[in-house]
Amino acid sequence: MRPHLKKQVIFIIGVSGSGKSTIGNLLAKELDLPFFDGDDYHPESNREKMASGKPLNDEDRKGWLMALNTVAKEELKKNSCIIACSALKKKYRQQLSEGIENEFRFVFLHGSFDQILQRMESRSGHFMPLSLLQSQFDTLEPPENAIRVDVINTPEQILEQIKSELNKSEFGLIGLGVMGKSLCRNLAGKGFYISMYNRHVDGKEEDIALTFKKDFPELHTAKAFDKMQAFVHSLQTPRKIMLMVNAGKAVDQVIEEILPFMSTGDIVIDGGNSYYLDTQRRYEYLKEKGISFMGVGVSGGEEGALQGPSLMPGGDPDAYDKIKGYLETISARDPDGNACCSYLGKGGAGHFIKMAHNGVEYSEMQLIAEVYQLLRQGKNMQPDKIADLFEEWCQGELNSYLLEITAKILRRKEGNNWLIDLILDKAANKGTGNWTTVAASQLGIPATVLTSALYSRYISAFKSSREKASALYSPEKLSLELPIVHIKNAYRFARIINHHQGISLLKEASESYAWELDMSEICRIWTNGCIIRSAFIETLVPLLKKEKDILLNAHIAGMLKESYAAITQTVSEAVLGHYPIPCLTAALNYFNSYKEDRSNANMIQAQRDFFGAHGYRKNDDPEGDLHHTNWS
Amino acid sequence: MRPHLKKQVIFIIGVSGSGKSTIGNLLAKELDLPFFDGDDYHPESNREKMASGKPLNDEDRKGWLMALNTVAKEELKKNSCIIACSALKKKYRQQLSEGIENEFRFVFLHGSFDQILQRMESRSGHFMPLSLLQSQFDTLEPPENAIRVDVINTPEQILEQIKSELNKSEFGLIGLGVMGKSLCRNLAGKGFYISMYNRHVDGKEEDIALTFKKDFPELHTAKAFDKMQAFVHSLQTPRKIMLMVNAGKAVDQVIEEILPFMSTGDIVIDGGNSYYLDTQRRYEYLKEKGISFMGVGVSGGEEGALQGPSLMPGGDPDAYDKIKGYLETISARDPDGNACCSYLGKGGAGHFIKMAHNGVEYSEMQLIAEVYQLLRQGKNMQPDKIADLFEEWCQGELNSYLLEITAKILRRKEGNNWLIDLILDKAANKGTGNWTTVAASQLGIPATVLTSALYSRYISAFKSSREKASALYSPEKLSLELPIVHIKNAYRFARIINHHQGISLLKEASESYAWELDMSEICRIWTNGCIIRSAFIETLVPLLKKEKDILLNAHIAGMLKESYAAITQTVSEAVLGHYPIPCLTAALNYFNSYKEDRSNANMIQAQRDFFGAHGYRKNDDPEGDLHHTNWS
Repeated sequence: MRPHLKKQVIFIIGVSGSGKSTIGNLLAKELDLPFFDGDDYHPESNREKMASGKPLNDEDRKGWLMALNTVAKEELKKNSCIIACSALKKKYRQQLSEGIENEFRFVFLHGSFDQILQRMESRSGHFMPLSLLQSQFDTLEPPENAIRVDVINTPEQILEQIKSELNKSEFGLIGLGVMGKSLCRNLAGKGFYISMYNRHVDGKEEDIALTFKKDFPELHTAKAFDKMQAFVHSLQTPRKIMLMVNAGKAVDQVIEEILPFMSTGDIVIDGGNSYYLDTQRRYEYLKEKGISFMGVGVSGGEEGALQGPSLMPGGDPDAYDKIKGYLETISARDPDGNACCSYLGKGGAGHFIKMAHNGVEYSEMQLIAEVYQLLRQGKNMQPDKIADLFEEWCQGELNSYLLEITAKILRRKEGNNWLIDLILDKAANKGTGNWTTVAASQLGIPATVLTSALYSRYISAFKSSREKASALYSPEKLSLELPIVHIKNAYRFARIINHHQGISLLKEASESYAWELDMSEICRIWTNGCIIRSAFIETLVPLLKKEKDILLNAHIAGMLKESYAAITQTVSEAVLGHYPIPCLTAALNYFNSYKEDRSNANMIQAQRDFFGAHGYRKNDDPEGDLHHTNWS
Repeated sequence: MRPHLKKQVIFIIGVSGSGKSTIGNLLAKELDLPFFDGDDYHPESNREKMASGKPLNDEDRKGWLMALNTVAKEELKKNSCIIACSALKKKYRQQLSEGIENEFRFVFLHGSFDQILQRMESRSGHFMPLSLLQSQFDTLEPPENAIRVDVINTPEQILEQIKSELNKSEFGLIGLGVMGKSLCRNLAGKGFYISMYNRHVDGKEEDIALTFKKDFPELHTAKAFDKMQAFVHSLQTPRKIMLMVNAGKAVDQVIEEILPFMSTGDIVIDGGNSYYLDTQRRYEYLKEKGISFMGVGVSGGEEGALQGPSLMPGGDPDAYDKIKGYLETISARDPDGNACCSYLGKGGAGHFIKMAHNGVEYSEMQLIAEVYQLLRQGKNMQPDKIADLFEEWCQGELNSYLLEITAKILRRKEGNNWLIDLILDKAANKGTGNWTTVAASQLGIPATVLTSALYSRYISAFKSSREKASALYSPEKLSLELPIVHIKNAYRFARIINHHQGISLLKEASESYAWELDMSEICRIWTNGCIIRSAFIETLVPLLKKEKDILLNAHIAGMLKESYAAITQTVSEAVLGHYPIPCLTAALNYFNSYKEDRSNANMIQAQRDFFGAHGYRKNDDPEGDLHHTNWS
């Protein structure tokens, strides 16, 4: 049976005498594809050199390989093709496949020296001196990621094996929840041949993958499974398997399930919101077994995953090289058209970055909620008027995805009611939301805005206590005299502080774990596809190339100074009006603390020395010895 | 050699014929102590009953044991004594030793039925029917915590063994840092015979225990060690060994060091600031080996440890029973004279409670630092004037240890300078300070004030960034019009919220870990000896007996309402004056959020549903199904 082939160039490679032309021709006939024999594409100079018995050097080969690369690219515009070419060195193979990401495969005809010699001797009229064959074997760098077939088999067997391998999927995905499904459609829509797996749970999850495949035409080349072994075996090696299962134990369980069927060099990609320390642990665990593990943060929600998410990969760089073609193709594009995905750092770096992203996201959401409340109750504005205002803000530097969607939310009605007014005010968090605060506490980063946003959700969850307290304290909110432009600038101010805290957390983690994170690159990846994409993130990309601490940057300082009066006024009046504004005040207090060269922490040190004899340092000798006073 | 004996009653116990009178008499001669033979103290009714061949019942014995208990107590007023009494049942031994905490020992003369029978038969003129001996053995409940000697040995051997055991220490302590030393002096000062161990490190820590012993007269009965085996063997079984080493790996190392020398039933007490999850782990680990592990929070600093700390024990109740005599003797006393120490809960409960204590402590310190700064810079008050003010506040409901010591700190001068002005404003934390925030985040408790205090220390540590930011933003603080009484009431308000958060954290942990913590009892233990002792904590003791949520209590609500205008005014003006007041604002925002029956969290839920299809619930069906809107 002819496999349903993805459009691609099939390079048949191997030493002289391994049968490249024979197999290439047979395969071309079988698959009804054009065949090109590399030998036919040598320039005249090479032919003369070879005819004179001189071996080709790498410089000689360069033009030839470029010519074949051109053939490959031209053919790809039409359809697949087959090209035979020895391509013994990795470098040659790179030159052959340059610019053809994910649309080629190597078929390596493998045999021992004696086997090839025997084959050649049995072939009439094709003489090659022993020394030449030896030099071929000396040159050979066996390819890692090729379909490897043994020349000792019959041509029929070899053809069957190649067809079977070509029929395998290039990328596998486990877990067809909201995000998993979107990623599958995104991958398949981009022309990738994928295998999809979802577990079978009697009466609850049955034929999930198969049903999903039938629902979407772009999945016609995708293979659907609910048996793990068949799924794993449906993948080309090295296998690339992405997990989109719930963070936590499920990830470990799936890893144990697939492990028996995996081979050395395979790659497991965890695209869930896993805890970065779990990712580090799994990375080490799988490394021992010869499996590469990548933790990839995926942001953008259902829509982003489908249209182009922001991807934050962490793990080994060489494993990344093998999956980047997939990830960078399906990801969002930054304003310059580059993929919102690139290699970010080792171990758990990708998931840490995603965690920090979510921390910033929590704060951005809470800041909007606070601003909304001030406008709605303090300025007595109706939701649609606030939507108008937010849309206006989105025209300028305050533009952000979250503000955009908030405007849409505020326009929505259900009957005569604003939908927002019907929604219960108990904010959920997925249990992963606290990780940023835990990490900030552990790493010594005062992420006040992020934590205030988390805690606001926690307080909101105490709905019944709040109702009792409300009855007891009969709170009343007051109208605000505050000009709206002050609220706008307070929001602007707080967002800067929020991003500063997120970046500080990343910087500290980078140092603690030796990840060497590039803050500008991380922000570039966040310019599109993810939930916190915004004009301000775009501002940060060039800025972070030269500035370590954004609060010490002149441009940012200008913004903060401009908005300082506005946030002090907003906080002051909101507090007098009885509004809870934890994130706005956290941002202001942080800034006020950060710019104090002399703080009240001397009091803390004096107290610690008083009751605990912990000692203190002195202003005139800040790096000097500890002093202790006998206070009592 | 006659051992240097602690004043105590030595009860010689065992079945009839085990040799109690003989050994008791010999021991009394050897130790030059009075000897009392229990048989001489039977009331006439018992004598008659025994003479008639009827066995005594428990009721008959009661008066007799009380009489012996009275003898013991009377003798203890003078000196040690020796009393022989069969005391076969645990109940009898409890009656014998009632009211004599830590000042008695049982010496159990042990032999098999045949051994005792043989002894008796060899004794002329002392006849006991076989059936009577059998009934003695049937009644016998061998004591757990006695010096056990074999009657098969010669009286000389038995005497030597008893003397050697009596010579052993009753309590051991490892780690002679500031806190360890203070606890040793406290224990020895209370009359306990202790062994003290400090490791030997060439050239750095040499003869620490021995030198320490020589420095303090109260340690004349203490034994000093720097060899672990000798230290462990110097202790009576079941051994009670308290670790006062640095939290973390050192605790595990010491446990591994002592383990080879320990016996089943021994008790290890960790008095350091260990992480509660480590304590849980160690508890399980040692339980498998038959060793009881107690995690005991110790608060009070150097002075408290010496004069009477507040102790927060967690672990198994029966292990606690064996150490309570020591802990409750050395602890502080509450206003009613009861020990600031009692059994609090299983596993890591004690260390969790200490952690929460420290979280509240961080906030109390930071609140004082904020108030101090407002008074100093905003009201332009000199330190001694602020000290006057704080002392005045301490006359009333704001009285607290921390405010008291702050007043003392503020009076201190060095030359012409206020000492507080010379102290470097980089607040340290011992790495354990972040645990409360980590636990709060993980348990879903919005501990805003505690976390703000932690983060303030973190910001203070960024001294060089602060100096650069100060140069860039040239901050200027403004004078405050604010009346001082407003600042006072803002402080009062924030303290209530701080304690509420600490208690909420404990309540949540109690539920999560099934510790069944008693909040009132915990606050009672905190009324003295510890760093956060205060008049307010005393207020909470009776209040928490009936109230679960202090913010919903009428008395507390009254206080909050009274102070609400003051804190809103203080926060508002301080913010306009450019002061960082993270803890004061955190308290106010928390309260404003807590008393809102309708919060802005509906916005968060709408956003989550928009980008993540997470769904939301509705106000008219708060427990109902999730709704999802197709927003775009």
